[in-house]
Amino acid sequence: MFLSKLDSLKNAVKLLQDNQKVTDIEEIPIAEAHKRVLAEDIMAFHDSPPFDKSAMDGFALIAEDTFGASQSNPKEFKIVDAIGAGDFSAKTVGENEAIVIATGAPIPDGANAVLMKEYTTTDGDDLTIYSQVTPGENVSPKSEDIKKGEKILSKNTFIRYQELGLIASAGYDTVKVFKKPTVKLIITGNELVEPTKEEIDKAKIINSNQFTIKAMIEDSGAICEIGHAGDTFEEVKEAVLKASEEYDVIMTTGGTAISKGDVVLDVVDDLGEILFHGIAMRPGKPAGAGVINGKVIFTLSGQPVAAMSQFDVLARKYLFEMQGRSFDFNIVKRTSQLKIPSQLGRTDFIRAVSDETHAKHVLNRGSGIIRSMVEANSYIIIDENDEGYQKDDIVDVVFFDSLLW
Amino acid sequence: MFLSKLDSLKNAVKLLQDNQKVTDIEEIPIAEAHKRVLAEDIMAFHDSPPFDKSAMDGFALIAEDTFGASQSNPKEFKIVDAIGAGDFSAKTVGENEAIVIATGAPIPDGANAVLMKEYTTTDGDDLTIYSQVTPGENVSPKSEDIKKGEKILSKNTFIRYQELGLIASAGYDTVKVFKKPTVKLIITGNELVEPTKEEIDKAKIINSNQFTIKAMIEDSGAICEIGHAGDTFEEVKEAVLKASEEYDVIMTTGGTAISKGDVVLDVVDDLGEILFHGIAMRPGKPAGAGVINGKVIFTLSGQPVAAMSQFDVLARKYLFEMQGRSFDFNIVKRTSQLKIPSQLGRTDFIRAVSDETHAKHVLNRGSGIIRSMVEANSYIIIDENDEGYQKDDIVDVVFFDSLLW
Repeated sequence: MFLSKLDSLKNAVKLLQDNQKVTDIEEIPIAEAHKRVLAEDIMAFHDSPPFDKSAMDGFALIAEDTFGASQSNPKEFKIVDAIGAGDFSAKTVGENEAIVIATGAPIPDGANAVLMKEYTTTDGDDLTIYSQVTPGENVSPKSEDIKKGEKILSKNTFIRYQELGLIASAGYDTVKVFKKPTVKLIITGNELVEPTKEEIDKAKIINSNQFTIKAMIEDSGAICEIGHAGDTFEEVKEAVLKASEEYDVIMTTGGTAISKGDVVLDVVDDLGEILFHGIAMRPGKPAGAGVINGKVIFTLSGQPVAAMSQFDVLARKYLFEMQGRSFDFNIVKRTSQLKIPSQLGRTDFIRAVSDETHAKHVLNRGSGIIRSMVEANSYIIIDENDEGYQKDDIVDVVFFDSLLW
Repeated sequence: MFLSKLDSLKNAVKLLQDNQKVTDIEEIPIAEAHKRVLAEDIMAFHDSPPFDKSAMDGFALIAEDTFGASQSNPKEFKIVDAIGAGDFSAKTVGENEAIVIATGAPIPDGANAVLMKEYTTTDGDDLTIYSQVTPGENVSPKSEDIKKGEKILSKNTFIRYQELGLIASAGYDTVKVFKKPTVKLIITGNELVEPTKEEIDKAKIINSNQFTIKAMIEDSGAICEIGHAGDTFEEVKEAVLKASEEYDVIMTTGGTAISKGDVVLDVVDDLGEILFHGIAMRPGKPAGAGVINGKVIFTLSGQPVAAMSQFDVLARKYLFEMQGRSFDFNIVKRTSQLKIPSQLGRTDFIRAVSDETHAKHVLNRGSGIIRSMVEANSYIIIDENDEGYQKDDIVDVVFFDSLLW
């Protein structure tokens, strides 16, 4: 069927973008916000640091009073107070006076520098210094990191651990983020059995897609629940309809049933609208997508490698962008170590082992060979306008790691 | 104190390696094994596919019978049976006979190829074919992915989604992995308060390290629980001692207390052994580590950027390797867009924005400036034997993404 009218990959991606949904916003404790996506701009409620802060353990004093001090020309000071972290001094530092200060404590009035304790000796309240400091030395100035009232992060920013620290410093104990999309993954296929070390009935095959695709969904920031359906139209229809009422996205694997055509696509056609079915790509040609009850459904292959490639090419971007996080392949250029044949009009995703300079495709390319994905760390992408590459040609490479959430 | 006898970074890493622990092994359901590390070799219990499998919907037949068939020279076959996925046929395909077959179904005896249904028409049991196939065409041969009895993955392999699929296909419903290390993160400092949008008491500072360091610990495959302790020797000692009895690793941030030296290191010295304190690196010079009750304790700075760098340089490797996963910086070469001064004898970790060709360091380098980590995506590493770089020099770069679990 689909072979006669394959959609181009670009067109399929565009059709999905036209149906892109974004999840609702929720407010969650900052402690749970790592790896979520900001749904609000972050405005600073405080300066950070909130005061001129000592960057060292030592003595707060007037830098000008230390000028000329050295090992051979020590200078004498009087210690008038001590400030621990979390404390402050009510005293003002005067000429040739010093206040003992801890890292993180506020610089007392009058002082403009901190001399590290390593360059001093003390005897009771008497301080001898053996080095000079410049004004501002060992002082972290108020608001050098964050200025109160300033916008410090924008909506749609992905919250890494460092953003998390910045948001906390700005005063947020909760933060607005996009909800994680919920995905129902429906595994179809009468031939599938659960993993077992015992002998498997004839014609049965272990269901590995449920594990790989669920992991990929979770690696896209989403929540996945697995369901199973047989190969009949009625079974698949019931499962898909229910999923379309309860989840944000539906995904299926498999679904070819003899003499009935592709039962999953028949269900999509019956319950909603098919966006596309059949893409000029390899592996993954039978990929389809549709819309049911306003929810997008991805119909992935039963073949493991085809399903993974279809997910990478179609579903990842959709799931990322549902959460307000933009996603595009981070394509880098590498030199191909082997000749790679391809076909005009088809986009190829060729499993490869790539490093900083080269890419070498994995030779076993069958769409059922999970090992080709295990041996690989990247795709070589051959555009539909290219007929393949010679050895030493420059090729487009996407590392698997760069696809992860 | 430590300034006079700074350990080199290499020596500090070596001291930690000498005290490297590995977690126990646990057996978990395959569904929970994504992003864990194998603690056993994986031997295949089955061939995969377990039989010669059809790769297409179509007709199983004898390839030789199709030779010469074309649009202008159709050939006639008789349909003798039909096989759905999960089923098999007891019949043997004879000369000019065909069996309807679904993708994933076993090739029946006698047949050696599958002709796609797109190149055929049917009328009852009569099949007309318009194309020829070669022997083996559209057949996924038995065991092309996995051969029964073969070792397909080795102990210490990190389980990505594709490894997960391979392990399932090999017949494993449970798998042995290294336990996640438990880490107690003790935040010290009387100056620290929780994030709030309200005005903060004088001399107090929002505690952001608890969020960033916990996220980094979890990004290293480990489990983190946060505790707090004041700045006194007794408080810190009680918290650290308890943690050393209940957790695999202890981590502290802060802990400078006036007139008492570094209280956290005093506690380590009292309860166990200090491995090092003070490293010739920037940021992060005051980094320390020790061993208490056989557990390693990392004493990180209170300064946020220093703490993050210390974690990346010292703790990540330790936590990865506790779980049997080797870790080393993935150093790539880039051209520096700016001059970078450094100092002989010190390793610098300079926050930078890097791309495929260039690295440009973030100008604001204070160890308290969280924003320098937010703006950056990488470190430029300047070895202790280098005095810095000129513009356009080639520098060593590590991308933050490459550090993650």
